[in-house]
Amino acid sequence: MTSEKQQSASCLKKFTNFTVWFDEILLNAKIVDNRFPVKGFLVYLENGAYIMDKIRKMLEEKLEKTGHKLMLFPLVTTDELFAKEAEHIKGFSGEVFKIELKGDKESQRTLIIRPTSETIIYPMFKLWIRSHADLPLKVHQSVNVYRYETKATRPLYRVREIPWNEAHTAHESPTDAERQVREAIEIYSQVLKELGISFLLLKRPDFDKFAGAVYSIAFDAWNPDGRVNQVATVHNLGRNFAKAYDITFEKKDGSRGYVYQLCYGFGYSRVLAAIISQHGDDRGLVLPPAVAPTQIVIIPILFKGQEKEVMKYAEEIYREVKDRWRTVLDDREDVTPGEKFYHWELMGTPIRIEVGPKEVIEGTVTLTRRDTLERIQCSKDKLIDKITFLMDDILRNLRERSERMLHKLIVDARSMEEATKAVDDKNIVRVAWCGSLECAQKIRENVGGEIRGERYDIAERPDRPCIACGKEARTIVYVARAY
Amino acid sequence: MTSEKQQSASCLKKFTNFTVWFDEILLNAKIVDNRFPVKGFLVYLENGAYIMDKIRKMLEEKLEKTGHKLMLFPLVTTDELFAKEAEHIKGFSGEVFKIELKGDKESQRTLIIRPTSETIIYPMFKLWIRSHADLPLKVHQSVNVYRYETKATRPLYRVREIPWNEAHTAHESPTDAERQVREAIEIYSQVLKELGISFLLLKRPDFDKFAGAVYSIAFDAWNPDGRVNQVATVHNLGRNFAKAYDITFEKKDGSRGYVYQLCYGFGYSRVLAAIISQHGDDRGLVLPPAVAPTQIVIIPILFKGQEKEVMKYAEEIYREVKDRWRTVLDDREDVTPGEKFYHWELMGTPIRIEVGPKEVIEGTVTLTRRDTLERIQCSKDKLIDKITFLMDDILRNLRERSERMLHKLIVDARSMEEATKAVDDKNIVRVAWCGSLECAQKIRENVGGEIRGERYDIAERPDRPCIACGKEARTIVYVARAY
Repeated sequence: MTSEKQQSASCLKKFTNFTVWFDEILLNAKIVDNRFPVKGFLVYLENGAYIMDKIRKMLEEKLEKTGHKLMLFPLVTTDELFAKEAEHIKGFSGEVFKIELKGDKESQRTLIIRPTSETIIYPMFKLWIRSHADLPLKVHQSVNVYRYETKATRPLYRVREIPWNEAHTAHESPTDAERQVREAIEIYSQVLKELGISFLLLKRPDFDKFAGAVYSIAFDAWNPDGRVNQVATVHNLGRNFAKAYDITFEKKDGSRGYVYQLCYGFGYSRVLAAIISQHGDDRGLVLPPAVAPTQIVIIPILFKGQEKEVMKYAEEIYREVKDRWRTVLDDREDVTPGEKFYHWELMGTPIRIEVGPKEVIEGTVTLTRRDTLERIQCSKDKLIDKITFLMDDILRNLRERSERMLHKLIVDARSMEEATKAVDDKNIVRVAWCGSLECAQKIRENVGGEIRGERYDIAERPDRPCIACGKEARTIVYVARAY
Repeated sequence: MTSEKQQSASCLKKFTNFTVWFDEILLNAKIVDNRFPVKGFLVYLENGAYIMDKIRKMLEEKLEKTGHKLMLFPLVTTDELFAKEAEHIKGFSGEVFKIELKGDKESQRTLIIRPTSETIIYPMFKLWIRSHADLPLKVHQSVNVYRYETKATRPLYRVREIPWNEAHTAHESPTDAERQVREAIEIYSQVLKELGISFLLLKRPDFDKFAGAVYSIAFDAWNPDGRVNQVATVHNLGRNFAKAYDITFEKKDGSRGYVYQLCYGFGYSRVLAAIISQHGDDRGLVLPPAVAPTQIVIIPILFKGQEKEVMKYAEEIYREVKDRWRTVLDDREDVTPGEKFYHWELMGTPIRIEVGPKEVIEGTVTLTRRDTLERIQCSKDKLIDKITFLMDDILRNLRERSERMLHKLIVDARSMEEATKAVDDKNIVRVAWCGSLECAQKIRENVGGEIRGERYDIAERPDRPCIACGKEARTIVYVARAY
């Protein structure tokens, strides 16, 4: 079994110099090219685009199974529509891209490019929702949203063109809305679990909730540099937007009321970043089998005089596995086996199969799993079973390894000094907080990290006073630097 | 077999009052909602979004099988990049949406929202292509492009937010580029064939080719109102863009040269429009099975005292077919069978299965195919085979029916008067043309239709003089109104 020591040994650069490590992988492993001459706009290369597309399919399948309808909404809204929900416009107006339409007077106007689609979707909800029979209404779309970030951009983590899935739902009652919060959390948790990504499920403090929400739940994934990576959020909007956009329905008793709403978003590029940085090592990507563009690579080891037998055998193996897994037979003649190993390790291919003269004679293959680099002999007739097992076991190992790392990164702090040191040491810090905005600001200023919120999945009662003011604490919160 | 008479009889409104018919279907069959308050920006409802998503998957599968890599490129380009290819900017600069970035001086600039992505993708090609080993390079993406149309917009046909797939390729030689033209045409033709859509494959006249192309091939689908609907295009760009964006490669002989390029696009909303308008009838949609959100609907016909047996039987049938086809058991209690028939015919569901007391006793079901409305008795044990046959036969019939209509719509004209009358009668007109721009203009002004080009798939030699000037004709061209 792999230990943290093993992971750390092969992840020296990842943990000590994350930015360099990450940027190298992005281009070398064909994830993204960051050289397009508009800041914050990425070109997704073949592996990056492929993995995001797979993530999208995994998520959309679960959304559709739970009754979310795919619909597609415009890129733009009008400034009138955008301004309807007061908190929302306050939160987003500083960071939107605008299109000024010229032309004849009738068409002179300003269009706002969506930073998120509430102001585009909810005017339609108003048209569609008449009675309780129309509820719940659950829609989703996978699109890009655009935010004119003034902060420094970072590929995948903080970009101006953000690929995500956003879901929007409307319900009859607060109970139904609460049930939907749990369903959304379950869907996102499942996808992340199938990708082996570990995260903290946090209820954001009020000062950091989504603009216009009653409360916000966030999925914060750990990152090797100690920052947390918010990969998804679920917002209970209560009736705030319903009142702003006048979305009412006729209840079963004949009276009219506002609907209760949720919106939730799943950031594809940030999940891609989490896959790279939680699982990767100094050799490159380590991909969960479900999203790997190539799941198996077969590399023939050719010796003079035996090329024909080995190639024939390699082709046999290829035919055996290719319909079950995405397989490449790397038979390039001008590249050495060592160079091929290097290439496919960089690409994160879960399983490598080597076949040489020895394997031909013995009727075996040599498998190497990318996560542990363990080499395994396997007879040809047990190959399918063995690979089936390994694919599951690789995901299990990635998930457990990632979870162990998350737990290792979380440290308790009882003083500002302890907390500051822990954040400097790239940890996620658990502190007691009284709940006041003043203390939150003190913590941010002193500790250099932000309060990310309290656990949503478990109740954690404070057993000590507020770390900032020493008064009675209301809650236990997690503090970290963030992207 | 269905005759044109049958189709015409059930398509009275579609052929006599297309616009009203089409707009009704769009909203009633949940295709799009055109009430969003920005002109030319549609909301795709559950069926429209679903069908487009299926079309996308059909196309992308074929693109990937032929070596096209999915990549994703930014929404915007800079005005410097946009201006590089002289013909291209002339063609598109009048109809782009612009974002004026404010903020500090360094970031003050104008961004152009893509009307198509040559000016975004080719600067990256310049970075990626070094030698012949990098060629061919074939990429594709399914995205929206944006054109600030000044003409009247029409839902799906002429919109400002255009969902499409665009592919871009680079090659070593003109021969390779020509081979790629044929591959692209084959891919698009296959998808359209699997949707039963018939079209003319036309080489556009020079004055109507893509801005920056050497020549353009277009897929013009017929439309009930006599206009043609350009659903896809393939452009051979030669070295025009390679020279503008300086895309060179080292050849096998060590010298350097410009690459040869293609771009081709497949319009999802226009193909959706073609599905609706070529196959639909006055009862609503008639969907090809491959893209139907619901492929089979089962409707129990309940008689007092026998509800239980019939429902049990309907559920049995449901369990038998649901894993093979997308099936709905419509067991709503407050809706009559007649209302259900009406609903699912509107939705274009390919096969309806009715089961009542008679079917329970006989161990049969009554099938109705949506394309011909023919009713078929089938014993329960032959159901799977029968449905498998019918699904294929429905597509075959839709395709043949559509092709017969296309051939019926094409008429020969030997004089301007004949041509004008034919266009007025909603036909596509075949005329001889000398090839001069003057005569093209005369034809447009007199006939009220545009020269859409000559056949690319077959050679048609003119056997008569130019319809406009009476001089020797160079080619046979097709004239029609267009969207």
